[in-house]
Amino acid sequence: MIDIEKYIRDIPDFPKKGVTFKDITPLLSHPEAMETCAQELLRLTESEKINKVVGIESRGFFFATLLAQGLAAGFVPIRKPGKLPYATLKQPYTLEYGMDALEIHEDAIQKGDRVLLHDDVLATGGTAQAACRLIEQLGGEIVQCNFLIELEFLKGAQKLRNYEIRSLLTY
Amino acid sequence: MIDIEKYIRDIPDFPKKGVTFKDITPLLSHPEAMETCAQELLRLTESEKINKVVGIESRGFFFATLLAQGLAAGFVPIRKPGKLPYATLKQPYTLEYGMDALEIHEDAIQKGDRVLLHDDVLATGGTAQAACRLIEQLGGEIVQCNFLIELEFLKGAQKLRNYEIRSLLTY
Repeated sequence: MIDIEKYIRDIPDFPKKGVTFKDITPLLSHPEAMETCAQELLRLTESEKINKVVGIESRGFFFATLLAQGLAAGFVPIRKPGKLPYATLKQPYTLEYGMDALEIHEDAIQKGDRVLLHDDVLATGGTAQAACRLIEQLGGEIVQCNFLIELEFLKGAQKLRNYEIRSLLTY
Repeated sequence: MIDIEKYIRDIPDFPKKGVTFKDITPLLSHPEAMETCAQELLRLTESEKINKVVGIESRGFFFATLLAQGLAAGFVPIRKPGKLPYATLKQPYTLEYGMDALEIHEDAIQKGDRVLLHDDVLATGGTAQAACRLIEQLGGEIVQCNFLIELEFLKGAQKLRNYEIRSLLTY
């Protein structure tokens, strides 16, 4: 099997000094590496019935649509404020300095939907936590949160301790 | 076959007064409608050998990864300035009022790559034209530009007249 880690590139000092960014674009541009990732992410949910896959803007979209297709589930985007055109719910969350927010269409999840939340990277967990709140406010049940990469030293899993968390790669 | 048009919602006055926005999120949340779209988009390229699929941030990512998987091609994101972490090429383009720009990683396309460019909507064609320039500057050959929706009255196809353009739905 392909070693997907080989296709992830460390970028020092991005987006700011002292941070090392995990760049997944080499993986995306390599068809076998991308397919391996998609299949491995799907395997994490193989015993679960999922009917909606939620991806977080923007890098979460890359695999979330593939997961939705693989699970024959619907795909729902969670986006930054002002991007979704229909009526939305909004959830603010704390950044290292200041605040940001995420939005979901209020008709995107129906009560009882069994939801897989996906993002490319679990860092501090603030965005995933805000996304979980949006899904639950609409009556969705979060079956699993999965990530391509988990940066364990940032302890994001602690913020998500009420959920089932799975990650393909941990650093 | 599913009538995919039924899953596209008109949003009046978004993102600004007088503009009717084509909202594809109902389509994305419906597994059969999404699968039909993905298969129909793939059919547009069935006689072509493609080895890279380029998607334009953000809504272009939804189907571009599915197309890449379906074609066993690599996926390449073109993004707004400052989002891509590695060395980039940048291409400014004109908006109705003012300028914006797109970026691509400079190692994302190799000379001779046969490229499918995908975005969700072809409107005035400014972003797609800027994306084509980035791909060609890196030595890529643009085999086709395809879109879920073409807003014909905005005449975007005129800006892309050097390329093969295909759209699933026209308005």
